[in-house]
Amino acid sequence: MDNINDIKLFLEPQSIAIIGISRKTGAKFDNALQNLLSYGYQGRIYPVNPNATEILGLKAYPSIKSIEDPVDHAVIVTPRTQVPGHIRDCAEKGIRAITIVTQGFSDSGDDEGHRLHKEIVRLATDTGARILGPNSFGSANVHANVCSAFARLSMQPNPVALICQSGMLFNGVSEYRFVGKGIDVANITNVDFADCLEYFEQDHQVEVIVLHIEGMPDARRFMRMARRISLKKPIIALKTGRSEQGIAAAQSHTGSLAGTNEVWDAALKQVGIISVDNLEEMVDITRTLSMLPPMENPNVAVATFSGGTGIMALDGMQNSRLRIGNIPANTLQLISRHAPDWLAVGNPLDYWPMVMGAENQAATISEIMETLLQDRSFGGIVFIQIIPDEYRGENARKILSSLMEKYPDRPLMAIFTGPLNSEYVKKFQEEGKILAFPTPERASRALVRLWQYSEYRRQNIY
Amino acid sequence: MDNINDIKLFLEPQSIAIIGISRKTGAKFDNALQNLLSYGYQGRIYPVNPNATEILGLKAYPSIKSIEDPVDHAVIVTPRTQVPGHIRDCAEKGIRAITIVTQGFSDSGDDEGHRLHKEIVRLATDTGARILGPNSFGSANVHANVCSAFARLSMQPNPVALICQSGMLFNGVSEYRFVGKGIDVANITNVDFADCLEYFEQDHQVEVIVLHIEGMPDARRFMRMARRISLKKPIIALKTGRSEQGIAAAQSHTGSLAGTNEVWDAALKQVGIISVDNLEEMVDITRTLSMLPPMENPNVAVATFSGGTGIMALDGMQNSRLRIGNIPANTLQLISRHAPDWLAVGNPLDYWPMVMGAENQAATISEIMETLLQDRSFGGIVFIQIIPDEYRGENARKILSSLMEKYPDRPLMAIFTGPLNSEYVKKFQEEGKILAFPTPERASRALVRLWQYSEYRRQNIY
Repeated sequence: MDNINDIKLFLEPQSIAIIGISRKTGAKFDNALQNLLSYGYQGRIYPVNPNATEILGLKAYPSIKSIEDPVDHAVIVTPRTQVPGHIRDCAEKGIRAITIVTQGFSDSGDDEGHRLHKEIVRLATDTGARILGPNSFGSANVHANVCSAFARLSMQPNPVALICQSGMLFNGVSEYRFVGKGIDVANITNVDFADCLEYFEQDHQVEVIVLHIEGMPDARRFMRMARRISLKKPIIALKTGRSEQGIAAAQSHTGSLAGTNEVWDAALKQVGIISVDNLEEMVDITRTLSMLPPMENPNVAVATFSGGTGIMALDGMQNSRLRIGNIPANTLQLISRHAPDWLAVGNPLDYWPMVMGAENQAATISEIMETLLQDRSFGGIVFIQIIPDEYRGENARKILSSLMEKYPDRPLMAIFTGPLNSEYVKKFQEEGKILAFPTPERASRALVRLWQYSEYRRQNIY
Repeated sequence: MDNINDIKLFLEPQSIAIIGISRKTGAKFDNALQNLLSYGYQGRIYPVNPNATEILGLKAYPSIKSIEDPVDHAVIVTPRTQVPGHIRDCAEKGIRAITIVTQGFSDSGDDEGHRLHKEIVRLATDTGARILGPNSFGSANVHANVCSAFARLSMQPNPVALICQSGMLFNGVSEYRFVGKGIDVANITNVDFADCLEYFEQDHQVEVIVLHIEGMPDARRFMRMARRISLKKPIIALKTGRSEQGIAAAQSHTGSLAGTNEVWDAALKQVGIISVDNLEEMVDITRTLSMLPPMENPNVAVATFSGGTGIMALDGMQNSRLRIGNIPANTLQLISRHAPDWLAVGNPLDYWPMVMGAENQAATISEIMETLLQDRSFGGIVFIQIIPDEYRGENARKILSSLMEKYPDRPLMAIFTGPLNSEYVKKFQEEGKILAFPTPERASRALVRLWQYSEYRRQNIY
């Protein structure tokens, strides 16, 4: 429990000191204190800056030792040469959780940086304090309105925890922001992936764990822990530094052994981790696993407004265990009521000829989709629609939100194409109810992974 | 020249008749006539509908034969049983270009459909008329404000021609709309890929040709023509119906032989066609080849605000012929002026430590980028930036548009991450000056293809 209590100080601190925080504030400046205040953090905050008496209305302290109250979490943003001294002071004050944001240690190009890094490692051992970083973006917890990063985050209460080695992951991309809860282990001193995994295992606000790995010193403990946790919560990992040149850059960036592709892929798979190839897939799989229920079988129904798009969705499922089975007779009969005589009703189900003449297209689409959702021989249902304008976008919202409300235990995902497709993917993602993708192949890839993980959890094999 | 003159009737008609056009108009209805009027088409338009005397202010004709003036292009949207009769009438009136939008021929599930399809093929042979479709979305030409499709397009004057077998491609996705000029050959009668390729070869408004292929009856003529044209204009192809089930669906959708993956991949590559794996890659490569100049060498400089994102960009270039070479000494010296002492200035170039303290971050970034652009030992330059808000988005616009204006012959692409990344990718795409991608791996994939095509054009090998 010691480790869990330590990591808790980074993610749920009752109080934070920011050592070396700048007096420069305003929209043009990346100021961690300014950000922290904007999130509405309710704990105590101690700016430490010997050249200020007050910053943003808060009393500033000349040193960490001049703070009388206890401090849970100290964040160091001073120049690198001052860092060891501040660690000593923090330890003497009894602070157990220290984040080093400062760069220029094992990531640097000079001897001084490497010497300072060794000093930090020794201090960590000597004091027993937990040191996050150096070169860390910090830690964040939307549920506690806390984040120690200098860049302002737009936080969303996703049930997702991120453990990463690059601050860019905290911000994510338009379609998805990972944090939730996040911790950048960066150039690992003595807060590593395994430590954070153990914390998120017992965190009831976390349903999916996402890893961005450049390299790690102690992979064995990590693997042991991942094997246990992946049976309770999905763990998604993006291992970067995969190319020869990428490995070299990763070694320089986080100063740790990066390892070859093959070794990593095999090791991650063995312990039930869902290994993804790139940032986009990481986003897609995270969204899918945090929004959809598990699949009961690998049989998929695809309902599409466009034959060509349906074919692309099928292409995206090739070489997977997903199957596009025939529609059972009774379901087929119910759907065929809507079809013109000439139409070969199949799977993929081309619904455009069924609705093009309908008075109320949305109602007809809803009926067809309900029929498919009620057929439990389908483990997953894909709905493909074009979003050329807001009229059709809002129609899609009505159709899909009512279906998802009525069938919460059915894995349903949408594919949108057309001029407004990304806008609606993003909008629905932020509203948190409808899972949609901007291309057929991305949706298929995500569904393949959903079935793989569903099967793993059922059979404990991957 | 006969074929080129025929295809011209579909893309630059002086007059269009729409046979079977509905009287139902308004936002809720997909009416081709309504669309055509909205684009500002300047040619003569003839609605043909025996139950109307006027539609949307235009005189309606009871039949194609009741039109006195000559008609360049007839679009048939009637029920399928009436189609053969209308083809005969069109031919008798001397119309050489006929589009059949109607479905339910070789794509249908009944014998009647297949019988009707054979009749159409026979009529095409007998009359010599060029028949686009059946089951075609139609043809479009932004430069002539003309499109025969029932769905409203938001057309952009891209220098791109699309030849496809699914109307969804006309609309594209948020980030990109292909049309430009487009033609949906659909269930090919006697207007096929080769016919359209030959037309776009000589079209000076077209710089890039994009193909969406489900299957084609005469691949040999197509391959011969592609080999010639790919040396003048890049040809990008997405072959769909690649999975076993996708092949079956493609055969049913366009009624043509789909062929195996391996055969297609080898054949396309052999004639210099850039074969892509999915819709997203098709969009990305098309944008890249229509916006960037060719690369002179495979050496790439990557300037990044985040070490982690730079590594992902490198990962995306693995197994390619691109190289992330060292920065030459004189360039390194110029850049190092901005760097703190401890920073190992390399490639990828982590510019964040150089600008984080700068009074004017944008100016420093611009200087660094200019130094890289002036170094011709780099064949391509990648700029990575986070777009957390409009302030940084507009900064990126200022930096990049001024660089692109000053160095139009230098291949420069941007990668944006963060909460507004997609918005700015889309915005810049629509403005047509800055090429940006929403993930590092997508940008890298596109750059790999740009170099492959640059090399092909220089050496005539792929």
